Amino acid sequence: MLKKIKELFIPQQLLKGNCGIEREMLRVDKNGYLSFTDHPGIFGDKVLNPYITTDFSESQVEIITPALDKIEETYSFSKALYDIVALEIGDEILWPQSMPCFIPEDDEIPVAKYSEEGREAEEYRNKLLKKYGGKKQLISGIHYNYSFNEEIIRKLYESSDKELTYKEYKNSIYLKVARNYLRYRWIIVYLLGAAPVIHESFLNGCSCKLKQISEDGYTVDGAVSHRNGECGYRNKEELYPNYDTVEDYVESINKYVNDGVIDSYKELYSQVRLKAKNPKNFLNSLLEDGISYLEYRSIDINPFEKGGISLNDLYFLQLLNIYMLIKEESSYDKWQQEAVRNQHLVAKYGIENVDLIKDGEIIDRRSWGLEILNEMKAMNSELNLGKEDIINEAIAKMADSSLTYAYKYRKLIEEKGYIKANVDLAEGYKESAYNNRFKLEGFEDLELSTQILMKEAIKRGIKTDIVDRSENFISLTKGEKVEYVKQATKTSKDNYVTVLIMENKTVTKKVLAKEGIKVPVGEEFDSLAEAKICINNYIGKPIVIKPKSTNFGTGINIFPEGANAEDIERAFEIAFKFDKTVLIEEFIKGKEYRFLVIDDKVVGILHRVPANVLGDGVKTIRELVELKNKNPLRGKGYVTPLEKINLGENEAIFLKQQNKDFDYVPLAGETVYLRENSNISTGGDSIDYTDDIPQKFKDIAVKASKAAGAKICGVDMMLEDYSDENTNYAIIEINFNPAIHIHSYPFIGTERKIAVEVLKLLELV
Amino acid sequence: MLKKIKELFIPQQLLKGNCGIEREMLRVDKNGYLSFTDHPGIFGDKVLNPYITTDFSESQVEIITPALDKIEETYSFSKALYDIVALEIGDEILWPQSMPCFIPEDDEIPVAKYSEEGREAEEYRNKLLKKYGGKKQLISGIHYNYSFNEEIIRKLYESSDKELTYKEYKNSIYLKVARNYLRYRWIIVYLLGAAPVIHESFLNGCSCKLKQISEDGYTVDGAVSHRNGECGYRNKEELYPNYDTVEDYVESINKYVNDGVIDSYKELYSQVRLKAKNPKNFLNSLLEDGISYLEYRSIDINPFEKGGISLNDLYFLQLLNIYMLIKEESSYDKWQQEAVRNQHLVAKYGIENVDLIKDGEIIDRRSWGLEILNEMKAMNSELNLGKEDIINEAIAKMADSSLTYAYKYRKLIEEKGYIKANVDLAEGYKESAYNNRFKLEGFEDLELSTQILMKEAIKRGIKTDIVDRSENFISLTKGEKVEYVKQATKTSKDNYVTVLIMENKTVTKKVLAKEGIKVPVGEEFDSLAEAKICINNYIGKPIVIKPKSTNFGTGINIFPEGANAEDIERAFEIAFKFDKTVLIEEFIKGKEYRFLVIDDKVVGILHRVPANVLGDGVKTIRELVELKNKNPLRGKGYVTPLEKINLGENEAIFLKQQNKDFDYVPLAGETVYLRENSNISTGGDSIDYTDDIPQKFKDIAVKASKAAGAKICGVDMMLEDYSDENTNYAIIEINFNPAIHIHSYPFIGTERKIAVEVLKLLELV
Repeated sequence: MLKKIKELFIPQQLLKGNCGIEREMLRVDKNGYLSFTDHPGIFGDKVLNPYITTDFSESQVEIITPALDKIEETYSFSKALYDIVALEIGDEILWPQSMPCFIPEDDEIPVAKYSEEGREAEEYRNKLLKKYGGKKQLISGIHYNYSFNEEIIRKLYESSDKELTYKEYKNSIYLKVARNYLRYRWIIVYLLGAAPVIHESFLNGCSCKLKQISEDGYTVDGAVSHRNGECGYRNKEELYPNYDTVEDYVESINKYVNDGVIDSYKELYSQVRLKAKNPKNFLNSLLEDGISYLEYRSIDINPFEKGGISLNDLYFLQLLNIYMLIKEESSYDKWQQEAVRNQHLVAKYGIENVDLIKDGEIIDRRSWGLEILNEMKAMNSELNLGKEDIINEAIAKMADSSLTYAYKYRKLIEEKGYIKANVDLAEGYKESAYNNRFKLEGFEDLELSTQILMKEAIKRGIKTDIVDRSENFISLTKGEKVEYVKQATKTSKDNYVTVLIMENKTVTKKVLAKEGIKVPVGEEFDSLAEAKICINNYIGKPIVIKPKSTNFGTGINIFPEGANAEDIERAFEIAFKFDKTVLIEEFIKGKEYRFLVIDDKVVGILHRVPANVLGDGVKTIRELVELKNKNPLRGKGYVTPLEKINLGENEAIFLKQQNKDFDYVPLAGETVYLRENSNISTGGDSIDYTDDIPQKFKDIAVKASKAAGAKICGVDMMLEDYSDENTNYAIIEINFNPAIHIHSYPFIGTERKIAVEVLKLLELV
Repeated sequence: MLKKIKELFIPQQLLKGNCGIEREMLRVDKNGYLSFTDHPGIFGDKVLNPYITTDFSESQVEIITPALDKIEETYSFSKALYDIVALEIGDEILWPQSMPCFIPEDDEIPVAKYSEEGREAEEYRNKLLKKYGGKKQLISGIHYNYSFNEEIIRKLYESSDKELTYKEYKNSIYLKVARNYLRYRWIIVYLLGAAPVIHESFLNGCSCKLKQISEDGYTVDGAVSHRNGECGYRNKEELYPNYDTVEDYVESINKYVNDGVIDSYKELYSQVRLKAKNPKNFLNSLLEDGISYLEYRSIDINPFEKGGISLNDLYFLQLLNIYMLIKEESSYDKWQQEAVRNQHLVAKYGIENVDLIKDGEIIDRRSWGLEILNEMKAMNSELNLGKEDIINEAIAKMADSSLTYAYKYRKLIEEKGYIKANVDLAEGYKESAYNNRFKLEGFEDLELSTQILMKEAIKRGIKTDIVDRSENFISLTKGEKVEYVKQATKTSKDNYVTVLIMENKTVTKKVLAKEGIKVPVGEEFDSLAEAKICINNYIGKPIVIKPKSTNFGTGINIFPEGANAEDIERAFEIAFKFDKTVLIEEFIKGKEYRFLVIDDKVVGILHRVPANVLGDGVKTIRELVELKNKNPLRGKGYVTPLEKINLGENEAIFLKQQNKDFDYVPLAGETVYLRENSNISTGGDSIDYTDDIPQKFKDIAVKASKAAGAKICGVDMMLEDYSDENTNYAIIEINFNPAIHIHSYPFIGTERKIAVEVLKLLELV
């Protein structure tokens, strides 16, 4: 098999595969006590949200990544979902490991509530509560879903003798991997296990002889994972369905159900599950469509990872999948019973070098583990997979159990106590979620506005897919409804000609002026001779003269206090050097404000100021900048809502003009500007004015938006004195692709919830 | 005044001014007999169409240009309106001069019919019919509307002593020009007069002693314009309203009405009319708002001009306006009576050097005329207006009356007869209108599709304005409804994201494939290594390998019959030299068809073929090309729907590959291609297939359009055999800015009325 695979595939192909993870986590209060509050309403209907739902308990959030073909994406998505949930649960935090928090008695455990549609799910949960008890239901874990790239299976089939149909062949592949997974799962329990300690409130949920290791924590020496051990969540009796063929498998399940051992296939808590295309009609679909993918259920939540699983462990699982595809099986017949025993042994005592049984023969955990890992290493090298580091890390852990998560985690509990250790971890992750609030992990290559919109959509259970990544083109699906969105604000709600109007400044001004909205009065000339005719009309008036196509670029001359004929003529001459059409325009005094209008409503008003520092009478400009740059909203290269202030040549020159340098100590309360331009890209600040600007100007912005026919636009308005309703104003531009991140995360002022306004406009909320 | 004007203004400023013309013209049959058919319904409600209406008679079309500030535009617009009308009147033609065609008796003359809203207009016409008789009502002419650039009046006022208010000052300017116009109008009658002959059917409408000069034509020797003479249309008695002030003028009109001399101000047939801002409340508006512009009514239709007036005559009128603004008035009190007398004399005998009266003194026509024209020449030179040629032309006519329109026109009648001469002229103009059918005169700088849309809108009385000329951005207004349109097919009906979907080929394919529409199957790669992985999958299949961003450009390799692994790899290598993303796509055999879909309906299907000639066994390729290039649809530089075939290097090389050259004589029926590519820009032919393609593919095109959400789009479909419903197909692209001119005016096949479909979509029709 190894030889065949080496022949058929290159490494990139083998490392393709669809991987998705589901992770449960308990909502708890600051004291680590299980929450009694409802699942946050913002996540919508539990049955319909494909990303965020609940598991058994109302307080047990389950997050589900899509199946993605890049491991790194799956990893990031799990963290992104964590971030989303962590910021929508008020003061609560998310319990960071598999074994439960401080929990109440069974009858107080809140079972997940459902709307009418989910009534069946709720009844099912109540039945489980009675049968298995509530405590065990609160044990949380990671379910790992994997399917090989279809092309791999297809090509293996093509090179087979084709005695089977393609469906049968594909089933046989997945069944082999499933059986091997069962055989080797103990290695996953050992390497990824991270649940060696239980809280005192869980004591009567566990029959093990436990040892107190902190005020509130109990363990068994050598324990790796109580979740995977005797006290874990499992069937009343061990069940051994037949994994020979799909038909055999289905038959065994039907027999269990008929015999009353389990209520339905859902109750078979195997460490691996065969998954079908249509989960609503599972057994039939499995028979008809074949195995769609496999679900591994032995993975504990990694308390040292925000997303619950590390990237390296995901890489390891992928290598293991290839290994299990290749590895020939032994013919030992009691393999299932043996595997269960090995699992429980490793779970309970695996930190020690326990004796396991391999095809009836005793072999110690370390020896067998190293045997497997060395085979994987050979495979990695033979197939050029380039993942030696990952396997070496596992080898190290196999050789030295003090490197395992379980060992380290137990140490942490011993140090801090069970609740304290976990609450600290959870609070750290929550802080990280807050610091990430303006972005979506794993999608940092997209524009911030798109990340913010996607985050809001995912939160609300709107299926979010990328249609063209480099173009920030996404689709949002809710039931039958699909909306395509580009760059967060280019939507189906704006009509094409509206965009074209906004794109063309001359047309925009005509359209606005027609509606009686003030725009800078001006004229356009195609020759200097023509331009000269008008000079007399502009003498002494505040004006701007600029090339038509290079706005705010070169060739522009501003006369805020007016100019004489000679100066105007010279300004025309300069402008005509840069363009064949030149504009002369009334200069509007004041400051520029960006009004973000969505669906005829001003949802944000922003003003930008040049890079600056506010003195405290002690620190130098250099120190003040350094301090200001520590704000997590400031980054480099547009990955954050604001940019770090640079202390470069431009800033030095600008300070020099003020007779200052980087070592100058501004007085307390003194604002020193480091730039003339207010661009965010050069360290400028953004300040929210949404609540400060008089309604009159908001009405004007909406009127302008309506005049152009826009549903989403940024109206750039000059206001001489924003606080005065009677101040002079003019609209200088309407922007058809306004950024939303600047309003969502300003430097100063309220963070405006803009993304949801876009979703409302699209009728997705 | 001259000095002041010279000081204040530069020539370009003086030559700015708003000029609009109205022109009446009779619809007649091929025999020159007045038509009895209704005004064509396509022009809509007579009361609402701002461009095309009727005057007195149902058969008397009146076309009205907007007031435009460039003379050339007004000139072109009048021709454009002529073209529009000429092609909507079936077999009828438009009588090309002022004096009527072959007309029936009064009681048979069809008075213009109106809908309920125009009832008043209809009653007014019936009253006129009784009072003045029908024949005279059919005399047609040009009304010339002019206002100075407001800036000129404003500056003159600024430099005045300001004893008057601005309104009074402006009125005084226009009243001076009006009075001077009345004094000097005889010169307009002489220079522009072109109605010296009447038809026999008009004989009893005229009291002059007439001389027969052809079978059906009658004149008076020396006659210039019967329209401006005794037999013309005028008040029962000469009326001399007071032109001193607006108040005096209004008072005199009120007196005439009170005395029962006229029914209303409308019935004052003065040679100049003061015009008010609000015509519906004329007298009040005149008093309140002042004079808005002047209307000159002495201009005959120039039978030698399609548009009824020559460009040079429009320039002359503009110079005359400036002259009349400057020229000081005499204090002679009987000036109005004198002016009427001079007008009638020139109209009736002006070809001769008749004696006129100037301030009570006799002066011959030539002497006075030359005196005026030489003053104008001096003014032209003093003010640097650069129009000496125009004045010299007038001087020549004044000196030699055989150069006048009137003289030439009489000669033509003598030669051909009255009806024949006019019908010949009219048919010539109608042919010109047909040859112009794909364009809008005066707007040839715009894209053809925009010209066609504007033409259709103007025809239907939809107010059509240019918002940004260089961008083909127009507005269409009907009542309160305004629609902006860019490049004819970018409208408010398409939403923004639909356009973005179509703009992005990857996204388009995803969206179409999702709806089950066949698109070329393919993959995208970001590196050669990745691309290599897939090579095996494509061996032997028809494929295209191309750089993502340079479609149909360089770096593309097509394997219609499939290729081996080596060739595919090389094609990838080549493509990656041009782009960092490369596509491999299924190659679809067949020919490409452009389906134009508007509002979920296929309105045109077009196929393009490379430049070619069809042999006749006699002519050489060179001769065949020359012949083919004579088609008026073929031009150079995209001003026509098709381009002329070039016989250049490319064509020579392509023929050489076929062992042919330009002197080769193709067999009868042999088609010789001169190019490989089918672009229209290199002489390709366009062929309409709208009625030939099976409904199935039309349905698919509509489905594709709907999938993208498009209201207007061009669907490019490959069809292996268009006539076979079961043929292989695939959509290769959807275009969001499809040209409409290619369907409107194909080389072969039905000309599709696409523009009206756009107007229907916009709910303007």
